[in-house]
Amino acid sequence: MSNPFSDNVSKERLWERHQALARIGATVTGGVNRLALSDEDFAACRRLIEWGRSFGMLESRDEVGNVFLRLCGTDSSAAPVVSGSHLDSQPTGGKYDGVYGVLAALEACESIAASRVPLRRSIDVVAWMNEEGSRFAPGMMGSAVFAGARTLAEIKAVKDATGVSVAEALDKAATALADVPLRALGGVPFAYVEAHIEQGPVLERLGKTIGVVSGIQGKRTFRVVVEGEAAHAGTSLRSERKDALLAATAMVGALIEHIHDEEDVVKFTIGQFTVTPNAPSVVPSGVTFSIDLRHPDSDVLRKLGDAIDGICQQNAAPCRVDVKELSTAMSLDFPDHMRQRIDSAAARLGISKFELYSAAGHDARYLHGVCPSGMVFIPCHLGITHNEAESITPDDAFAGARVLAEVLSELAQLES
Amino acid sequence: MSNPFSDNVSKERLWERHQALARIGATVTGGVNRLALSDEDFAACRRLIEWGRSFGMLESRDEVGNVFLRLCGTDSSAAPVVSGSHLDSQPTGGKYDGVYGVLAALEACESIAASRVPLRRSIDVVAWMNEEGSRFAPGMMGSAVFAGARTLAEIKAVKDATGVSVAEALDKAATALADVPLRALGGVPFAYVEAHIEQGPVLERLGKTIGVVSGIQGKRTFRVVVEGEAAHAGTSLRSERKDALLAATAMVGALIEHIHDEEDVVKFTIGQFTVTPNAPSVVPSGVTFSIDLRHPDSDVLRKLGDAIDGICQQNAAPCRVDVKELSTAMSLDFPDHMRQRIDSAAARLGISKFELYSAAGHDARYLHGVCPSGMVFIPCHLGITHNEAESITPDDAFAGARVLAEVLSELAQLES
Repeated sequence: MSNPFSDNVSKERLWERHQALARIGATVTGGVNRLALSDEDFAACRRLIEWGRSFGMLESRDEVGNVFLRLCGTDSSAAPVVSGSHLDSQPTGGKYDGVYGVLAALEACESIAASRVPLRRSIDVVAWMNEEGSRFAPGMMGSAVFAGARTLAEIKAVKDATGVSVAEALDKAATALADVPLRALGGVPFAYVEAHIEQGPVLERLGKTIGVVSGIQGKRTFRVVVEGEAAHAGTSLRSERKDALLAATAMVGALIEHIHDEEDVVKFTIGQFTVTPNAPSVVPSGVTFSIDLRHPDSDVLRKLGDAIDGICQQNAAPCRVDVKELSTAMSLDFPDHMRQRIDSAAARLGISKFELYSAAGHDARYLHGVCPSGMVFIPCHLGITHNEAESITPDDAFAGARVLAEVLSELAQLES
Repeated sequence: MSNPFSDNVSKERLWERHQALARIGATVTGGVNRLALSDEDFAACRRLIEWGRSFGMLESRDEVGNVFLRLCGTDSSAAPVVSGSHLDSQPTGGKYDGVYGVLAALEACESIAASRVPLRRSIDVVAWMNEEGSRFAPGMMGSAVFAGARTLAEIKAVKDATGVSVAEALDKAATALADVPLRALGGVPFAYVEAHIEQGPVLERLGKTIGVVSGIQGKRTFRVVVEGEAAHAGTSLRSERKDALLAATAMVGALIEHIHDEEDVVKFTIGQFTVTPNAPSVVPSGVTFSIDLRHPDSDVLRKLGDAIDGICQQNAAPCRVDVKELSTAMSLDFPDHMRQRIDSAAARLGISKFELYSAAGHDARYLHGVCPSGMVFIPCHLGITHNEAESITPDDAFAGARVLAEVLSELAQLES
């Protein structure tokens, strides 16, 4: 059977583009360090634009640093179908997280363009700004502002560890991509589809190629600031110290104990933990640490998250502690019709599939708020991700891009 | 009674010089950030040299970055009397730690020079390189190499957090102080006397001005490296994680419990604690932390320190841990005749005094290994130190410099 829109998806081209992007910000140990709004991030966007231009896509960017490539439809007044993910990475990230969703969408468009069949709606490939939230926390800034969930002013004030604000970094982006036309911020897409590596072991263990994503588990993030007092390590009495590190480790211990579940469903992570002044012979005056808490059941998530402040306060003495919730996102389910479309496309192409929940957060969370959204997963070896050893296969990447080409072309032909 | 060698100690000049040095590397919150071998450190050495030159002292430096000023004696072949401390600070340090010992020695020499009485031995004022051990660990590098306790090659290999080695930083020092004559490394002084702020509350509480230091408490330092595995905060199962932060906090908790003493004599500090990759949504792959352990009783210090590796190993699972001892220094007592000289000088000048142990380590520890050494303490408000709020009074600073002028001039007149 012929599938004109997905038949020209190229496994080789898709794979080579992944390897080409992986060289931008490559680490010596095989991973990628391409933080949001860094020079490497700009270089990756620039490369993406060149590839899109090569088959006639039109580039644009918006004020929050999202980068778009448009495959024009016949009805320029019709809302576009949007597909993509992000090009930024964790400091010791892998080659595929985010990148796959952008390149699969690009590949799908190149295949659709090759069919020479005109579609009603335009298709926009997008690279959302700062999904990872590693340099500027919390993440998903580009999609959140696009969808109106956060304001541009609010995220512009966020600073990285060196004191650089998002506002300053966006000015750099505007300079680096000065020749890329600016488009209006936001909008209401006709639909949004995001391809992504699973970042879990389920598909690989079951031997399935495509994950039809039913929804995204909820997540709450916190910043905990412990204030103590600097003192000399050799002279100050234990009874008179206000050691911020000891208070912080007591909080961590109590939090772990409280949050522990035998079923191993809750996800609790302290990924960032920074000590001041961080000198061997000085009693720490301060500790700032992050909490990332996730659970698919919104009630459980609410209850566990609400206990955090109290637990930290109870373990703070003789220091002081301030707990601030940075982001709250309850669990969500994608619309049935989007899930069915992905499911049917895989079936049509004879590719195995399985419906599963996303344990990780994605930009699709915010798009879900403004238009029908869905996600396509492909397997991720051993579920290892946010790690330089992250790995996928060219065959799985290829299968996902074909399913995406089918779904995007189908959506782009719909009247409403 | 006239005391020709100490009568010209100037309270105003001594105080103004402290304030002048405090402006080099001043922090906005009233402290000093003047890390070893930084541009600020070089600028402070430069200022010291200018002051010494103004009354005829001769400057020199050695290969390990120590800076000397000599007040020449009549017998150039006689071993010199040495006095000083250090000009480097903690990242959020105060204005007096180390600086006082250097400026009090300089002031003593200026007073001795003003007496126009020729002394037999030269007096060397010294600023030892990297006492604090904050940028390059462990500290007291300049005095340790001078005294032969560590080799130049060994310390040159040490790197700071940004990867700069002591060797590279010493090259910068050689450039910054290129016009200062190089002297041979090491030597055997006739005697060494170090003035310092107490860094504890004893003298202030007792209302005493001069501390006659009987000895220095022992200290062992360790570096603990915990190795886990990076993973995604939203997808990886708790049971499959190798979370280096959780393992490290378990170690800290167990260490605190083991080391706790009701008497509050042991000093146990984890001042440095660094997480990798330190990103909010990544399970930490690594933690490196420092341990600073001190106790005046060498047997207790030995026993407590020897238990550290085992406690860390027991709490490491599912991560791995490597514990390395960086420095070991047992408690020491200064010779009686040095203590008596300081005691008598204070008595002669009518200044109140008290004999006490030093809880903090000092460069005098290493000099004690090569020549008769002693220390003079002055009060430190509330014992607050390694803190921007560190404070002393001009009167106490003046009293200490007068005692030092008496002791140094007396030593410099001795035949043997």
